Amino acid sequence: MREVAILGVAMTRFGISEKTNLEMFAEVGIEAIQKSNLAPKDMGALFFGNCLGAFEEGQLHMAPFAHSELGLPVSAPATRFESACATATVAIRHAALLVAAGVYDIVIAGGTERAAKMGTPLATRTFAMASQAQHESNAGITFPGVFAMAAHMYADKYKVDLSVLKMGMAEVAVKNHYHGAMNPKAHFQKEINVDTVLGSMMVADPLQLFDCCPFSDGAAAVVIAEANKAKDLVEKPIFVAGMGQASCGPLYLQRDITRVRAREESIHQAYTQAGIGPDEVDVAELHDCFTIAEILAIESFGFYEFGKGYDAASRGETRLGGKVVVNPSGGLKAKGHPIGATGAAQVTEIVEQLRGESGARQVEGARVGLVDTLGGDLGTVCNIILRS
Amino acid sequence: MREVAILGVAMTRFGISEKTNLEMFAEVGIEAIQKSNLAPKDMGALFFGNCLGAFEEGQLHMAPFAHSELGLPVSAPATRFESACATATVAIRHAALLVAAGVYDIVIAGGTERAAKMGTPLATRTFAMASQAQHESNAGITFPGVFAMAAHMYADKYKVDLSVLKMGMAEVAVKNHYHGAMNPKAHFQKEINVDTVLGSMMVADPLQLFDCCPFSDGAAAVVIAEANKAKDLVEKPIFVAGMGQASCGPLYLQRDITRVRAREESIHQAYTQAGIGPDEVDVAELHDCFTIAEILAIESFGFYEFGKGYDAASRGETRLGGKVVVNPSGGLKAKGHPIGATGAAQVTEIVEQLRGESGARQVEGARVGLVDTLGGDLGTVCNIILRS
Repeated sequence: MREVAILGVAMTRFGISEKTNLEMFAEVGIEAIQKSNLAPKDMGALFFGNCLGAFEEGQLHMAPFAHSELGLPVSAPATRFESACATATVAIRHAALLVAAGVYDIVIAGGTERAAKMGTPLATRTFAMASQAQHESNAGITFPGVFAMAAHMYADKYKVDLSVLKMGMAEVAVKNHYHGAMNPKAHFQKEINVDTVLGSMMVADPLQLFDCCPFSDGAAAVVIAEANKAKDLVEKPIFVAGMGQASCGPLYLQRDITRVRAREESIHQAYTQAGIGPDEVDVAELHDCFTIAEILAIESFGFYEFGKGYDAASRGETRLGGKVVVNPSGGLKAKGHPIGATGAAQVTEIVEQLRGESGARQVEGARVGLVDTLGGDLGTVCNIILRS
Repeated sequence: MREVAILGVAMTRFGISEKTNLEMFAEVGIEAIQKSNLAPKDMGALFFGNCLGAFEEGQLHMAPFAHSELGLPVSAPATRFESACATATVAIRHAALLVAAGVYDIVIAGGTERAAKMGTPLATRTFAMASQAQHESNAGITFPGVFAMAAHMYADKYKVDLSVLKMGMAEVAVKNHYHGAMNPKAHFQKEINVDTVLGSMMVADPLQLFDCCPFSDGAAAVVIAEANKAKDLVEKPIFVAGMGQASCGPLYLQRDITRVRAREESIHQAYTQAGIGPDEVDVAELHDCFTIAEILAIESFGFYEFGKGYDAASRGETRLGGKVVVNPSGGLKAKGHPIGATGAAQVTEIVEQLRGESGARQVEGARVGLVDTLGGDLGTVCNIILRS
């Protein structure tokens, strides 16, 4: 397998958009190609992510239309991936694997989603379709409910007082809004404090409104090439050091939802391939769909022992300047979460961080970055480790 | 890249099922694994196809649940593909590429769909979501309409009297029903004659009801492995000789819909990789969603010159015993068309034909077989050439 690198990256501002999925993707796709000093004709294939286009726009088979919006050649196949919130990460992983294999030399990958415009009730219902429909979503489970259960189980299992856990969770939201306030592409560019979180509407006890990421519109794309080609094309190619992807079935088969089995397997694959461990990671973009989810993730990565990650944000250790900066983009919480685009935006942030292009929210000296995206109610996890 | 082979294959009977997508897929997945003399724990990954699960069952993120129904290990990622009607073919192609690359040694791929139970009006509407939503499906275009236009353009371009073309199309339906009557897995196992077609309800002039494939429920799965491993496991592995996939954007960008640009590119890729031409193909399972579509396909493959394929079925040349047998399974027309499963069922038929296991509809001496699946209104084509 050949070494693979990322060249140009681009994302729309996340938030509420009047544009279609295809319009948003065309914008970022062209920008990523241009930043790679390439033209559409140079792309060998398109790996395209979208989850809810059929519901949002009556548009199921979007990949070949994204392909023509970008002006790609007929010989470059366009393939759609859907892995719930991990959609774009899985698309990028497959793109990188096929470049590593020599099937393609240069490809483009990413995703697009409109989730804000459909409104909270319909978005909640359609997002819940990522749960097991026959046994879970039909019974009324939604994602806030799943992660609320995880928070209660965490407090119980590790004997952490729920009010202490809630404070740790609130500090995750405060940190990610602090980071997001420095990100001109973020959905929310406004700092909050612990009172903002604890004073907000209850969504699913113990999760309050500011424990939850928003529904956002947006798109992101990255160009991927064989490493030597990448070095010829751009000044600072960012190398794919390791990747992982794993699946662990529906929620009702999980014995302990404070431990995401798919993540533990996926990160093991990625660390092994990269030949590194958690201590070598300088910056991570991880799946903070809810504040508790960030706490579960940093424990799975080995940044903290299980049961010990709940006050990492309170202690400032995951904040800019801390020992491992988590979600400098603002994360799903503040940057926003257009589900089919999220993984590509995480990769975009890590690439820019490793290039030293992140302005006020730059993680000083970042050399190794980790991308983590969780799909569904723990069913799918995909990880990508990048290095400068 | 390593040589790749297909081991066990399985499909449900196509038709109307009371089972869920996951139940159907679990059935065929387990059968394909057993026929490969393997166990679920041996699978390195799942490449899963489905198009309309979110509409049919409120089930978006089905791949990890299919994974757990099969009892696959957590380390084997489950990835969903959607390429409209070419969904399962594209999933199988990616599976074969990653086995060829050495990323996995043994994987399972396939698809499942429930399209019959939703009824014709909703099925027609949801299928039309595979057209470009903003410019085409919102204007009322449906797939019968697209292929009706292609038939009119074909008659006009090649100066074939429409009544002559209609007779050639009717003979495609008669042939495929003749084949389907010998296939115990087919949706329709009943012979028809030309009068059945020409006397049937008009759907979209000149396409009548018997020019159109049905909406079907069904699932199909195949196990794929590195060739040497495959030889150790099964008596008759069937080898992947060449593959192709191409994209050509929405209908409104096509200059001539009697020529499917994505197919011409895709089949070129597949022939080139296989090192063969049309004369070496003994049997083809191709995308006869409408009778005219079969005529367009055999011309793109080079079985016939452009404008000369319309009476191939009338002359018996594509029928069992003819020079190249087309759709011995009954094709989409008679075997049925559960869209996310169709490509895997085509591969299943070709594998069984090349193994000499097709009973009454066996193509004598078949050594090389071609799979062809068209996604959307000409947007995506994927081809796989198999050899014994």
